[in-house]
Amino acid sequence: MTSPEFRRTITLRRRDMDELGHANQAAYHEFLEEARAAFIADLGVPDARPDAYVLARVELDYRREVRLAHGTVDVVVRVERVGGRSLTLGHDVLQPDGTVAATGRTVIVGWDGEGRCARDLTPGEHAALAAHAT
Amino acid sequence: MTSPEFRRTITLRRRDMDELGHANQAAYHEFLEEARAAFIADLGVPDARPDAYVLARVELDYRREVRLAHGTVDVVVRVERVGGRSLTLGHDVLQPDGTVAATGRTVIVGWDGEGRCARDLTPGEHAALAAHAT
Amino acid sequence: MTSPEFRRTITLRRRDMDELGHANQAAYHEFLEEARAAFIADLGVPDARPDAYVLARVELDYRREVRLAHGTVDVVVRVERVGGRSLTLGHDVLQPDGTVAATGRTVIVGWDGEGRCARDLTPGEHAALAAHAT
Amino acid sequence: MTSPEFRRTITLRRRDMDELGHANQAAYHEFLEEARAAFIADLGVPDARPDAYVLARVELDYRREVRLAHGTVDVVVRVERVGGRSLTLGHDVLQPDGTVAATGRTVIVGWDGEGRCARDLTPGEHAALAAHAT
Repeated sequence: MTSPEFRRTITLRRRDMDELGHANQAAYHEFLEEARAAFIADLGVPDARPDAYVLARVELDYRREVRLAHGTVDVVVRVERVGGRSLTLGHDVLQPDGTVAATGRTVIVGWDGEGRCARDLTPGEHAALAAHAT
Repeated sequence: MTSPEFRRTITLRRRDMDELGHANQAAYHEFLEEARAAFIADLGVPDARPDAYVLARVELDYRREVRLAHGTVDVVVRVERVGGRSLTLGHDVLQPDGTVAATGRTVIVGWDGEGRCARDLTPGEHAALAAHAT
Repeated sequence: MTSPEFRRTITLRRRDMDELGHANQAAYHEFLEEARAAFIADLGVPDARPDAYVLARVELDYRREVRLAHGTVDVVVRVERVGGRSLTLGHDVLQPDGTVAATGRTVIVGWDGEGRCARDLTPGEHAALAAHAT
Repeated sequence: MTSPEFRRTITLRRRDMDELGHANQAAYHEFLEEARAAFIADLGVPDARPDAYVLARVELDYRREVRLAHGTVDVVVRVERVGGRSLTLGHDVLQPDGTVAATGRTVIVGWDGEGRCARDLTPGEHAALAAHAT
């Protein structure tokens, strides 16, 4: 059985656009971050606060322009892999009509803010993530 | 014979930092963009204006925090591959003492701003890039 | 008779926050910009495209922190004065419970993008703005 | 006797530019922030860490476009008034040839990060600022 994909709608801002008249490449990474944080909040695990992770890796393929006239983008979050300390998420950035503007993957790692170092994912996180894994 | 690496120093801004007290993950992509643009300007090819390319893909591994106290980061640009329409660049983001904060790769594609579509790299671009390729 | 205030809700992003754990001072100016653009689009005047103006002046008093937990802010736009080439708008930035986080004023000027210079407001703009002026 | 003005050079980034092909209005507030922080660090007072202040008010008149081709801007910082808890600074944002791109004023307030409230300026701050006041 496959859990439904998590999806977050992001309202575009004028400040996301650059001189080329489309969303700047760095803005996509803000979109992914918003979607990841919403996904984590949605897990409903006390340990799984958005600031309890740091990004270890991102891969992103830019497929189509996002322009201000699009108004919003949707960012899809899929759990691809759960490890001892890390989590691999698959992402699509979609224009409002469903066209894929970008597709990629992020690896996030549990983060101990006090020690400023990686930490193991907790049993609570593993249980919540298992329910989302495809 | 190996050409020297291209390197661009970026002065950090307070606005690069996020709630976790380090450079936000999206800010690294601004740093890469600055370095790519400086590299392209340095090629000295009239066709190779920075706005004559769009980013097709990025991969980035985050290794160490960048904090405001670092003051600057250096971004290294290496030519890894030159194709008909695209260019693969290798990157390191370095703290001032040379510690690798992030390492990755971008693929950029020649861009026809009027047609809003990909274009072939020109002979002038190929010649200039060949001199940089390792 | 007083026309109702225009109001735009802005969803906060993690990237709006800075090291002090609240929305960075520059982010408020992104919020104002979004609200101004939405206000102008709402005027329904063909001439009144958001890119048909540039900002000439801003004054902003920061009263309260905006934190990520607020989720959104509302930005109020009031027409304070309509001149030959410029428009003065009053603004409040409100936390979700209505607490004023910031209050200020912007002056925007009609902009001729081709000539890159100021332009007179058109009769259509004057008519639409008159309906909003208090 | 008048102390020399403090001045900070800011390297422009592509991400500062918006769809209109010039530095976005919000980017100017990042420039002011960098200059204020550098000014405060330059005071050499242990209490006067940049995160020991918050911005209470900004006024900014936009006079000229800043374009990517300008490469850098200089931000001037002048002490206009020192109060019990606040400090008024005058600012110019200059193109490389000295043309004023923007001119304005900020009021910053001593900030107690633990209490998240305003604090009095310390004797050390007053002494250092007196040396800068015109």
